[in-house]
Amino acid sequence: MPETINVYLGIDLGGTKIAAAAVDVRTGERQVQLVVPTEAHEGPPAVITRIASLVDRVCDQANLRREHVPAIGVGVPGVIDPSSGTTLLLPNLPSGWRGVPLVAEMQRLTGRPTAIINDARAFTLAEAVFGAGRGMHSVVGMTLGTGIGGGIAIDGRLYLGLDGTAGEIGHMTIDPNGAPCGCGNRGCLETFASGPSITAMGLRAVAQGMTTQIGELVEYDLNKITPEIIMRAADNGDGVAREILQRAGSYLGVGVANLITILSPDRVVIGGGVSRLGEWILGPVHAEILKRCHVTPLNRVQVVPAQLGGEAGVIGAAVWAAQTSGTWH
Amino acid sequence: MPETINVYLGIDLGGTKIAAAAVDVRTGERQVQLVVPTEAHEGPPAVITRIASLVDRVCDQANLRREHVPAIGVGVPGVIDPSSGTTLLLPNLPSGWRGVPLVAEMQRLTGRPTAIINDARAFTLAEAVFGAGRGMHSVVGMTLGTGIGGGIAIDGRLYLGLDGTAGEIGHMTIDPNGAPCGCGNRGCLETFASGPSITAMGLRAVAQGMTTQIGELVEYDLNKITPEIIMRAADNGDGVAREILQRAGSYLGVGVANLITILSPDRVVIGGGVSRLGEWILGPVHAEILKRCHVTPLNRVQVVPAQLGGEAGVIGAAVWAAQTSGTWH
Repeated sequence: MPETINVYLGIDLGGTKIAAAAVDVRTGERQVQLVVPTEAHEGPPAVITRIASLVDRVCDQANLRREHVPAIGVGVPGVIDPSSGTTLLLPNLPSGWRGVPLVAEMQRLTGRPTAIINDARAFTLAEAVFGAGRGMHSVVGMTLGTGIGGGIAIDGRLYLGLDGTAGEIGHMTIDPNGAPCGCGNRGCLETFASGPSITAMGLRAVAQGMTTQIGELVEYDLNKITPEIIMRAADNGDGVAREILQRAGSYLGVGVANLITILSPDRVVIGGGVSRLGEWILGPVHAEILKRCHVTPLNRVQVVPAQLGGEAGVIGAAVWAAQTSGTWH
Repeated sequence: MPETINVYLGIDLGGTKIAAAAVDVRTGERQVQLVVPTEAHEGPPAVITRIASLVDRVCDQANLRREHVPAIGVGVPGVIDPSSGTTLLLPNLPSGWRGVPLVAEMQRLTGRPTAIINDARAFTLAEAVFGAGRGMHSVVGMTLGTGIGGGIAIDGRLYLGLDGTAGEIGHMTIDPNGAPCGCGNRGCLETFASGPSITAMGLRAVAQGMTTQIGELVEYDLNKITPEIIMRAADNGDGVAREILQRAGSYLGVGVANLITILSPDRVVIGGGVSRLGEWILGPVHAEILKRCHVTPLNRVQVVPAQLGGEAGVIGAAVWAAQTSGTWH
């Protein structure tokens, strides 16, 4: 069966759910995709067992024998040690996830070679090979969500840097005297333009009694404020909400402008939940780039939305497995 | 003579002088190096003719026949259009240097294939192949001088981005609301830590009547203030001078921290005139990196001084000629 050797398993391990798919790495097409809750509180062994049985279910439904899967790729939400295949710092999972030998455990349970990769790098790889960056020489990927992740792909391959940490663009300093960031730095891009930072700006506006619909839209249950709620207020003409999104988008634009200045890539591909705020965020990003980038030939840098949606994670993980297991050409 | 095919000519075109050398690109050794004044006011044709006769003199002294030189590389202080081989924006040369077909003219006058490259990229390539970044997977080069230039080398090759503009790190935004920069942006790294920016801080301190030796050291001829003068005052214990260098170094450190966060390189190699301020500048750079980089494995990123001195320019230009003329392995 010569075609099955092109089908790899891609796993996207998230804080709340795990997605797994059989991916044809010649085309990026998924044959089967299944999703289960992570239940991270049960601890790493239970979650890894859940991933392994998910692998079996995907194989079953895709009519694949597990031993015909050349390799499995797992996208992980945080910092990993690629040499040992262990997790280091996964901010969205309980602290017990530090130092988990994920590769060894997956290989023991599935019998298949396993490769792990940061989830934002997996997103970037998928978009560079099959999505909005397809065919481009150089692609910078950005995922805007709870955090701001990223990756750099050159000729369809990830540029990873030391321990795979290249692309940690959320921790670029945008304002040296800015607010403290969870990472230990201050003024990081994440402190201005991540989902929680946008939410916090909405919350502050309501708490300070500003004239805004944001409070009304959540019936003054401030826990319900989200970037989407702020966008709804902005859509309704709310000036405070518009200013919040303008501010987040402008700071994000400073970050994108820096990436363009430093890397001069063909494409910057933006995905993740916050990118669904669309022009409210991307408008100010584009305006800031025009104000700030004067050396790069801006007429040829394209800042574009991601194309693969939420599936980029599993596709990128599968491509990563194919590229690192030596069968990718 | 099989060994002569490894000898390329490297030219470093500067605002005040032109250096040319015959460089063995297997070893990085220069066989002959000559320097003449640029006399940029005479206009591009006269200067290019001067470069061509410099090529002849270097060949003579190196006992090379010009027709045995496989290719010539020219490092250019500014932005170029690599596809047409013309200059675009050379801030340190008169405005007549915009749009000069440097490659075509050099090839017409010398009869040899010619390649051009931004001078900071040439510096980076030389240091990556033969200098402080030798043998490393990824190297970021920085030249601190009148401007702040840079480059990115991966496995001994330049990563260039669109039109060769990757590495324009001097125009990374460090403070979104900072002072205007000549490029059109504001708050660029160059506005904080280039030679002229450091000089301007010294000048301002004297003009504002601060208690500092800086004015005395130049006998109150404010045109004579330079970063070296400020360093001399700092060496003498001058608090104002120390604060100026501390401030420049800290902002430079924010820029270096951003490069490390984004690229996670094995080495950051720092050269150029301002880097001769040594620990006065590099001390605060290191302190800032420690404060700001918490994801990259900092114990393995090395921020080091350049090793090739002022010769990196000609060596890098020669290596660039070798790599682009297809004889480099």
